[in-house]
Amino acid sequence: MASLVDPSDHSPIEDAEALQKAVKGWGADEKAIIAILGHRNATQRTQIRQAYYDLFQEDLIKRLESELSGDLERAMYRWILEPAEREALLANIALRNANINYHIIVEISCVSSPDELFIVRRAYHNRFKRSLEEDVATNTTGHLRQLLVGLVSSFRYGGSEVNARMAQCEADVLHEAIKNKNQNHQEVIRILTTRSKFQLMATFNRYRDDHGIAITKKLSDEGFDDFHKAMQIAISCINDHKKYYEKVLRNAIENVEIDEDALTRVIVTRAEKDLKNINEVYYKRNSVHLEHSVAKKTSGDYKKFLLTLMGNEE
Amino acid sequence: MASLVDPSDHSPIEDAEALQKAVKGWGADEKAIIAILGHRNATQRTQIRQAYYDLFQEDLIKRLESELSGDLERAMYRWILEPAEREALLANIALRNANINYHIIVEISCVSSPDELFIVRRAYHNRFKRSLEEDVATNTTGHLRQLLVGLVSSFRYGGSEVNARMAQCEADVLHEAIKNKNQNHQEVIRILTTRSKFQLMATFNRYRDDHGIAITKKLSDEGFDDFHKAMQIAISCINDHKKYYEKVLRNAIENVEIDEDALTRVIVTRAEKDLKNINEVYYKRNSVHLEHSVAKKTSGDYKKFLLTLMGNEE
Repeated sequence: MASLVDPSDHSPIEDAEALQKAVKGWGADEKAIIAILGHRNATQRTQIRQAYYDLFQEDLIKRLESELSGDLERAMYRWILEPAEREALLANIALRNANINYHIIVEISCVSSPDELFIVRRAYHNRFKRSLEEDVATNTTGHLRQLLVGLVSSFRYGGSEVNARMAQCEADVLHEAIKNKNQNHQEVIRILTTRSKFQLMATFNRYRDDHGIAITKKLSDEGFDDFHKAMQIAISCINDHKKYYEKVLRNAIENVEIDEDALTRVIVTRAEKDLKNINEVYYKRNSVHLEHSVAKKTSGDYKKFLLTLMGNEE
Repeated sequence: MASLVDPSDHSPIEDAEALQKAVKGWGADEKAIIAILGHRNATQRTQIRQAYYDLFQEDLIKRLESELSGDLERAMYRWILEPAEREALLANIALRNANINYHIIVEISCVSSPDELFIVRRAYHNRFKRSLEEDVATNTTGHLRQLLVGLVSSFRYGGSEVNARMAQCEADVLHEAIKNKNQNHQEVIRILTTRSKFQLMATFNRYRDDHGIAITKKLSDEGFDDFHKAMQIAISCINDHKKYYEKVLRNAIENVEIDEDALTRVIVTRAEKDLKNINEVYYKRNSVHLEHSVAKKTSGDYKKFLLTLMGNEE
């Protein structure tokens, strides 16, 4: 369930006019901007961008960028984009990082449905005039490259049919590959990048039944390299992405210095999708509501914006 | 330019009724079937399939399969399908072959536009309840697998921008890789599976300018393995698919025993697209019209059908 609270009817023109008022003159009225955009879904935000351009011959995104700053600016910029455009942007930022943030690449590839992922790839073309896999391949090497390129290029079968014998066989392959850390990467890549999500879940269940431990847990032992970490993230995202996001949020909040990038990314990306459910998982795991943790660790208009997206303005 | 001659108006119902007459009773009227279906484009054929089903509660494809036989049956079966469905079928047949016909996989991946290829992948899901890359990966190993999976999963950027410096650099990488036959497969795979077609054409041109020989020619030397052969086909298809198809047709016709599979595949696949242009390339290269070569080497209703699709019924 989404956490976003959006009106069923709104006027893009009135919203655009109110936003123009909020950015006019010295200093922007952040609260007014949050009150409007923090309550509009993707379609509505796109209509507002268009109405703003038609009325004022100005790009709303550029204007907001120049009026806002810091964490709020970054969060608002990500929020106002359409989902696929935002994922393309997040992927690109991850790839431009000195140490590429491959977990974001894995996350986008494995949480999205096969069709959503394809739309992200198209959005990447439109925005960066290159393909996503092209940038992934240029910025990585070796087995990690093969795994990441395979994941971002995947178009998995979406049906729920499961082949139990294949699940057994491939659970064994994964087991062997994990045991002999640096062998058989090719088969791991083949399995993780081409099988359907339902088939993979059956394989991971088989693994747990046979070995008494979740495959992701096994991969969190020491001594594994980036390839195995990427493998672990892929499995987590495919198996239960809500649990995965709970962990990302928990790590972001519990970090000595709170990780605003991760916090913003998850809240902005999931607010319109299933942030309510992720919140429930978070509460179950931590016995505290996500809103409270976020409220405690953030401040100012950035805090206000995140809480608004979480459907809780205090 | 297409070679197919189709009427601008036709009645799916009348066509379906005429087809039913042609398949009724003992022995089908092949000439009548060819006269109708050999003159209908993909949309029209789909309408006829639907009308036939509505009128007679029977699948036209299944009925034709049981009424026709041999090369004509195979050609008609491929022809009546929608283009993406047909490519999915051709890929599947190629993969089920004892020695997988990887050249067909490369052909489908590299001749199709990025969007067309995606539609083929979707058709593969619908028809086989698996992904195309899944079947490619299961049936291949090693570097050939990596190249083929990369090609079928690609969604290349479609713009015509070219980076000349990158073309120079990657032409050098390809040159080195070809020189040291069994090294640097990873970089070859990265370049061929992720770069845009325009960028790749610039790279191949750079190669020819620097080394005085086309890269495909260089790869036709002896001593290259399947990986390099697949690489050569990919480059041919990306560079000039009409020239590539001319060669496939020439080999099929000049073979001691004519290769009907290849002949049917190219004619059926290109009749609605650019078979006229391929015919021109064929004439330039062989000083004989493709229709004449085909007429000389085939016979009966199969011959009649191919010539009909080529827009030439003698």
